[in-house]
Amino acid sequence: MIDVIDMAKMAREASRRLAGISTARKNQALLTAAQEIRGNADALREANQQDLRTAREKGLSPAMLDRLTLSDAALRQICESLEEVTALPDPVGEIVNMWRRPNGLEVGKMRIPLGVVGIIYEARPNVTVDAAALCLKSGNAVLLRGGSEAIHSNLALASLLARACGEAGLPEASVQLIGTTDRAAVLTMLEQEETIDLIIPRGGEGLIRFVVKNSRIPVLKHYKGVCHVYVDEGADPDMAVRICVNAKAQRPGVCNSTETILIHEKEADDLLVKIAAALRREGVEVRGCPATCARIPDAKAATEEDWGTEYLDLIVAVKVVGGIEDAMDHIHRYGSLHTESIITRDYGRAERFLREVQSSSVMVNASTRFSDGFEFGLGAEIGISTSKLHAFGPMGLKELTTTKFIVRGQGQIRE
Amino acid sequence: MIDVIDMAKMAREASRRLAGISTARKNQALLTAAQEIRGNADALREANQQDLRTAREKGLSPAMLDRLTLSDAALRQICESLEEVTALPDPVGEIVNMWRRPNGLEVGKMRIPLGVVGIIYEARPNVTVDAAALCLKSGNAVLLRGGSEAIHSNLALASLLARACGEAGLPEASVQLIGTTDRAAVLTMLEQEETIDLIIPRGGEGLIRFVVKNSRIPVLKHYKGVCHVYVDEGADPDMAVRICVNAKAQRPGVCNSTETILIHEKEADDLLVKIAAALRREGVEVRGCPATCARIPDAKAATEEDWGTEYLDLIVAVKVVGGIEDAMDHIHRYGSLHTESIITRDYGRAERFLREVQSSSVMVNASTRFSDGFEFGLGAEIGISTSKLHAFGPMGLKELTTTKFIVRGQGQIRE
Repeated sequence: MIDVIDMAKMAREASRRLAGISTARKNQALLTAAQEIRGNADALREANQQDLRTAREKGLSPAMLDRLTLSDAALRQICESLEEVTALPDPVGEIVNMWRRPNGLEVGKMRIPLGVVGIIYEARPNVTVDAAALCLKSGNAVLLRGGSEAIHSNLALASLLARACGEAGLPEASVQLIGTTDRAAVLTMLEQEETIDLIIPRGGEGLIRFVVKNSRIPVLKHYKGVCHVYVDEGADPDMAVRICVNAKAQRPGVCNSTETILIHEKEADDLLVKIAAALRREGVEVRGCPATCARIPDAKAATEEDWGTEYLDLIVAVKVVGGIEDAMDHIHRYGSLHTESIITRDYGRAERFLREVQSSSVMVNASTRFSDGFEFGLGAEIGISTSKLHAFGPMGLKELTTTKFIVRGQGQIRE
Repeated sequence: MIDVIDMAKMAREASRRLAGISTARKNQALLTAAQEIRGNADALREANQQDLRTAREKGLSPAMLDRLTLSDAALRQICESLEEVTALPDPVGEIVNMWRRPNGLEVGKMRIPLGVVGIIYEARPNVTVDAAALCLKSGNAVLLRGGSEAIHSNLALASLLARACGEAGLPEASVQLIGTTDRAAVLTMLEQEETIDLIIPRGGEGLIRFVVKNSRIPVLKHYKGVCHVYVDEGADPDMAVRICVNAKAQRPGVCNSTETILIHEKEADDLLVKIAAALRREGVEVRGCPATCARIPDAKAATEEDWGTEYLDLIVAVKVVGGIEDAMDHIHRYGSLHTESIITRDYGRAERFLREVQSSSVMVNASTRFSDGFEFGLGAEIGISTSKLHAFGPMGLKELTTTKFIVRGQGQIRE
């Protein structure tokens, strides 16, 4: 059994070759991987059955079982997303900018891969393929560490990906999956700062906090998405209702759905009641501040804890505020730096909200549900960062690269 | 005595106000700080004398005492560099790019401060002012933690900076210096991931490794600069001699001076001898591979350890290599991702070196001594990063910022 330290070293060696491999060859590896997955669907389903049996014995919820299942549709989607990644522009080698110094030196920045990316994730086996595809396309080797629930599925997928790399002329160690599922393996992984350049944890807050606490390697992560919509004085009522409902109820289980609606006190008597009625029709439970509860008879009283909670469910906290200042204070205090939107007709307050709210995505007159790499036009999404270093907000292929300085001289020396 | 946790919280509150403060006001604070320093030179020198007395008692080297001394010239330079920072463009609020999505959403990226930057540094008191100035100009609050040798000088400088902030209408807590010099205070600082966004350690490798090992906050650092010059087959001999001498001997004690010269075997009989003679005239000791020692009688034999050593002195390691491939393998194995330069007349090998060497600065026909924020035209330098996340290479004001996504909508919801 190869241990984690050796795998990380092999990934490091692979990354050196990967950095110089052509776009065409990387795309070939992705297309070959899709072919391998299609051609080995039976073996994949068999491996997946092993995971599903164990999961049923453990009593996993139907929703968890559903996410774990490699159905025909799930496999088709995995292959399609591999093919979609081939269509994305390759960020590696791009000259970001170049300038000339008074001494004639030309100085510029060239985009290069990060090197080795470690992904630590929970049950969904499609992450194995999606994450590996984005790492490969951006010239990075990837070391995957999935959850124990999907271990057989993940191993089967990763071995097909590695084989596809080999067939396309990439190092097979470009994609490796750690086969042991104990936490000690994760701890060892998080200590390999000499060979791993970045860790991306994907999963629940507990997993992410564990990774951040123990990692010597930089981590890009978000703990939770407590997103806010602020309905300003004089907002277009139809727009406010439409966006509040969409932001909360269109898909409540994801991080960019709204958890708290803040509304200007002058809109509390009329517009708030309309919004609450529309939310009720979608089955949303309202937990409100006293001013909200006074106007919405079936609202529950919100506790202090509600303001910082990511419900991921058909529940919304609602607070009546004195104005934009109050709203921004609330967001500053309880927000998670994910996504906030103001619904307004006022130019000055729109601009102020955009400038002053320091979350990773700040919107005017749009649903927070747009906070997403695909919706923003990044072409892909490897995750969302709510910490400010390196990347802040949805991360695409470019966020899996860095830039080095290049200097073209004609014999210059320093005086 | 205010403790570190409270100081970090105050810095966080200050950072929120700082993020929205105008360029003019930030510049005013920097100019006021220069006036305060000029107007309180006597008090500063007195505080400095306390540090110098202790340092002499401890038997610090003359070089260390020199770096610690706030001479008239040192104070003048500190004030001038404050004034120079006012001339730099303010990165905050810049719209990096903006694009339109098919649904009409305008999505863009706006540059914002990181928030709170922690600087952990050793003896030089000028770092107190230089680092604070760059943090302020980029809209960040700064929490400084200098070495015990300079504690009185640092406290005096920091209190003038805080006063200048107050006078210019910035929060006084924009600049704070931790007054205790025990390591426990550093450890506490490194745990404040809720209030500090970035740690920059500046000092010896021991300090930096301590910080990286113990920090829960992202760290930008470089351990050491083991820079290489590779003299290619057919290089212009005069240029090769000139650059090798400049890269090694112009200022050997800094991180971008060259520690190892690699030279093509076809240039070993003639050009290597010329380079060695020129280095000898500058008082440089050569430690060579066997092929080098066979040609340079006074060269010492290099040990395995020499290849990875940052001498910071008039010593250079020299190795004869079979070609660019060998040279790049050596750099990959022993380098520190700082700066490497190829001296060549060959177009293909120049381009290959620029693309394939994955150090933070890669040069053709130029001295490694140019690897510096000022020389690259960044206008300032807060440090050099040799890790790839967030910034790689010299860091200026922009590297003290991040970008958030901004979205301008007209009522869009997600279907």
